[in-house]
Amino acid sequence: MIIVFTGNGKGKTTAALGQAVRAIGDGKRVLMVQFIKGPWKSGEDFFLEKFNIPHSAFNIIKTGKGFVGILGDSLPIEEHKRAAEEGLALARGEIESGKWDIVILDEINNAVSLNLISREEVLGFIQVLSSKLQALVLTGRDAPQEFIDLADLVTEMRDIKHPFEGGVMAKRGIEY
Amino acid sequence: MIIVFTGNGKGKTTAALGQAVRAIGDGKRVLMVQFIKGPWKSGEDFFLEKFNIPHSAFNIIKTGKGFVGILGDSLPIEEHKRAAEEGLALARGEIESGKWDIVILDEINNAVSLNLISREEVLGFIQVLSSKLQALVLTGRDAPQEFIDLADLVTEMRDIKHPFEGGVMAKRGIEY
Repeated sequence: MIIVFTGNGKGKTTAALGQAVRAIGDGKRVLMVQFIKGPWKSGEDFFLEKFNIPHSAFNIIKTGKGFVGILGDSLPIEEHKRAAEEGLALARGEIESGKWDIVILDEINNAVSLNLISREEVLGFIQVLSSKLQALVLTGRDAPQEFIDLADLVTEMRDIKHPFEGGVMAKRGIEY
Repeated sequence: MIIVFTGNGKGKTTAALGQAVRAIGDGKRVLMVQFIKGPWKSGEDFFLEKFNIPHSAFNIIKTGKGFVGILGDSLPIEEHKRAAEEGLALARGEIESGKWDIVILDEINNAVSLNLISREEVLGFIQVLSSKLQALVLTGRDAPQEFIDLADLVTEMRDIKHPFEGGVMAKRGIEY
């Protein structure tokens, strides 16, 4: 099945992460390939390390170069594009290896909407590779309509209220 | 901070679960108190067992009696109400013990909208107890407006597409 978590609200990646935990508890093997997100570690990475979760049961691979075009990003867009292409190629290889039951392409929707990778390429990927998995999960705001059309389950996370509005900064371990 | 995940779409409990994983990785102690959900185990419980996650770092306590008024539920509503009251009392004791940084009241919004527990009582709970935590997370559809008004971060999970529509049953380890 194909699952899409999209929208401008908090909870897309965490919902995928929660779903991963649930699936792993049930004996499934889950890979999260993170697009855009750079090499720095976040709470989920520390979690895997701290509790010695075997990489064969749950792995998180970051393939991005960090925020694109904001927050002091000075990388040429080509670098971001190459990273996204490499991320997709890595995901393809992992799926074809048969090692995973569920694969999450985290922020892939953003990678498409930021033109790091073409929607046609990802669409072809989904069409060919989702059948080799129990679930393929796509996260990120601005999911293309074509992804939604292909998906079995789509949730839009809508931002009703967000602490940045009130000037409060994101809290480590809570928001990232 | 007070966080609300509401709406009719998939991803509310899993977002809270993902947030828990992230926070635990960052050294925080997280308790999820589940309302309505009965004693049967789901993927997240098996996950905690499988990887020996210490209960002091992350615990999930189910306080409900199962679905209310549907799927063959034959319990008197008073039993559900008592279970919800006991769940809230348990959560209060746990928060007051100082053992937790983050507490998730899973499906508490439903417990209120199903009149298992009064909105005034939960409102009082939030107002008094949220300040003792780094985050208090409330999940479930139909969050009362008063909870949204009090919250710092609110995401509505909107159902755009759902497999039940197509007659496909929920898959264990993926949807629950």
